[in-house]
Amino acid sequence: MTTEAATAAATGLDRVLFEAFIIYAAAKVAGQLAEQIRMPSLVGELLAGMAIGPAALGWIHLGEFQEVLAELGVIFLLFTVGLETRFSDLRAVGPVSLRVGILGVVLPFALGWASMKATGYSDAESLFMGTALVATSVGITAKVLSDLGRLREPAGRAILGAAVIDDVLGLALLAVVSGAAAGTLSGGRVAATLATSIAFIVFLAVAGTRLMRRYPRWLEAALPARSPVVVAIMICLGLSAAAARVGLAAIVGAFLAGMVLAEAREQYELDRQITPVTNFLTPFFFAVTGAKVNVEAFTTASAIGLVALLTVAAVAGKVGGGWLGARGLAGSERAIVGVGMVPRGEVGIIVASVGLAGGTIDERLYAVAVAVALLTTIAAPPWLQTLSGPPRI
Amino acid sequence: MTTEAATAAATGLDRVLFEAFIIYAAAKVAGQLAEQIRMPSLVGELLAGMAIGPAALGWIHLGEFQEVLAELGVIFLLFTVGLETRFSDLRAVGPVSLRVGILGVVLPFALGWASMKATGYSDAESLFMGTALVATSVGITAKVLSDLGRLREPAGRAILGAAVIDDVLGLALLAVVSGAAAGTLSGGRVAATLATSIAFIVFLAVAGTRLMRRYPRWLEAALPARSPVVVAIMICLGLSAAAARVGLAAIVGAFLAGMVLAEAREQYELDRQITPVTNFLTPFFFAVTGAKVNVEAFTTASAIGLVALLTVAAVAGKVGGGWLGARGLAGSERAIVGVGMVPRGEVGIIVASVGLAGGTIDERLYAVAVAVALLTTIAAPPWLQTLSGPPRI
Repeated sequence: MTTEAATAAATGLDRVLFEAFIIYAAAKVAGQLAEQIRMPSLVGELLAGMAIGPAALGWIHLGEFQEVLAELGVIFLLFTVGLETRFSDLRAVGPVSLRVGILGVVLPFALGWASMKATGYSDAESLFMGTALVATSVGITAKVLSDLGRLREPAGRAILGAAVIDDVLGLALLAVVSGAAAGTLSGGRVAATLATSIAFIVFLAVAGTRLMRRYPRWLEAALPARSPVVVAIMICLGLSAAAARVGLAAIVGAFLAGMVLAEAREQYELDRQITPVTNFLTPFFFAVTGAKVNVEAFTTASAIGLVALLTVAAVAGKVGGGWLGARGLAGSERAIVGVGMVPRGEVGIIVASVGLAGGTIDERLYAVAVAVALLTTIAAPPWLQTLSGPPRI
Repeated sequence: MTTEAATAAATGLDRVLFEAFIIYAAAKVAGQLAEQIRMPSLVGELLAGMAIGPAALGWIHLGEFQEVLAELGVIFLLFTVGLETRFSDLRAVGPVSLRVGILGVVLPFALGWASMKATGYSDAESLFMGTALVATSVGITAKVLSDLGRLREPAGRAILGAAVIDDVLGLALLAVVSGAAAGTLSGGRVAATLATSIAFIVFLAVAGTRLMRRYPRWLEAALPARSPVVVAIMICLGLSAAAARVGLAAIVGAFLAGMVLAEAREQYELDRQITPVTNFLTPFFFAVTGAKVNVEAFTTASAIGLVALLTVAAVAGKVGGGWLGARGLAGSERAIVGVGMVPRGEVGIIVASVGLAGGTIDERLYAVAVAVALLTTIAAPPWLQTLSGPPRI
């Protein structure tokens, strides 16, 4: 009994460490290979996850620890993105972001829903897949724009602002759609969720950044010297948990935490201390996301056709929404805004996961949603590169 | 169903992030307070864990994700310690380390076992608690010595070498004792485990460091530029998993990975990239370790008496073993070696956990073992400070 327990404990730990090694190594190697063919590293990391996941090679499982490392990975990713984003920059392009964000929700949702209905799917399935096309991945978009050196230009800032709005609207839409699918739709509850979310974001964005701008020394005073990074990580984890508690995606809290801290004078030092943690954890997010895809779902012609149809809907909806919403910017900037909104990434996958967990969509439609997210992500970088010319650093 | 699933998923994630925030914030604040009264930060982190754990405030649970973050924390801690340790330095004081290591195992084990038997405990309980007194915590010792600026002096190197030997002998002893307690003791199996462990360590220490010294550029060549840290983390996770697989503690693999990489020219850059990850993850290890202690176990006079008795045995065994083993060094160095071996830390607690999981020792003896580890850790720093004079940086 004693040795068995000891052996079991050792085997469990052994397995955990082995899988952590496999996930990290596969994601990093594939990510580097992707970068060598001028793709974002996350494309390689997602594909590596699909390869080693339970549906393909089966080298890793999908349990609590994989999920938590993935979640911490995406939280630190959005925190790092937030650290590069000042609220004052976002406000300067506020109306454009708002229009792009709203049109970028309405058009892809309508096109996705119509495509599903036209192909003969049920109302609930059509609503869910439409919702999965709504969110723009702030993380992926920011990574692509940052690689191109355009994160701080008008188009880049418009996209970041619009992606935050997409996130809020997308999550509100998810609440409505999942309520409708379960037959328990309550207008009051949806309104309350929406109001809480908006209050949370506005309070943080306005009060937080003002506090940081006016009293930049409080970070240093809160703990003894040399520890602003500790306070920053506390703020990141705390706001992520708070965002999850009020019904927002945790990553929204992490992004806002970064944005608030971007006003602090220690920004550069924070960046330098937090980037290594992000670099360690983020591959777990993309690899685990890929590992959830059942590759066998793509063996039918109808699945491949549906992926193609929804990818066209997703791209057309975002490019159209970005182009229409960004009027007032130059023509080349408008095109970049549209194409920059195309990558779907993690938030669309979160929506699909909720649908899968609730039984509204099946494993096949989940795989289709992930494939669309992946294709939009693969399509965007070369397209953006063509539009924007050589990288500006 | 759909909204319930979504709510449940959100609640689970919400809870995970909230607990990650609580663990990190409590450990870091308490650690900073400990440092202000000249204690190692880990004392504050352990006590914070005891306070927020299920047995006291109950703010956190002990599940898979807490365990995995704790495990990654101790692995990165030992990896960082390894990065500061060159095998060539260890070899220079090899015979001293060997003597200190062996005596530091034999004496505390004998004294601990005798104390337990004299107090009327069973053979199995006495053997387990004796074994829990054996290991020196490389992490704690190195942190204390590093704070004092003495890690690279003869006494510091002797302690690091002896702690590695302690680890190997302690784990072999654990295999023997847990086999004996379960009545399935097999001399052949113990010998095989011991042989595997020694082969693993010698191979890595000799072949690995030679490879790194002779071909320092292979690290850069293995992946495109700017990524030696990625290869280093792969080696750390891979060797930790391999160590766990051959029956060693995973931390031994992490320590050896660091030691092998210490020979590489990129050492400084590795250190700078890996320390932030270590700083993020290590508080989870100490806080979760503390959270496992059932504080109520200390409400009886006999438990307090047993803690006192075993603490004396643990201190006397290590100081005596260090003093006797370090003959050949100066008198002041010999005292530092003895006292430097006193902190028990995580490895003693791992032994106690195995005993607890196997049912050989109960929750009360587990709490006693953790209290002894904590007391030896609290006692060592001021004692070392007195012996060594002001810090040397």
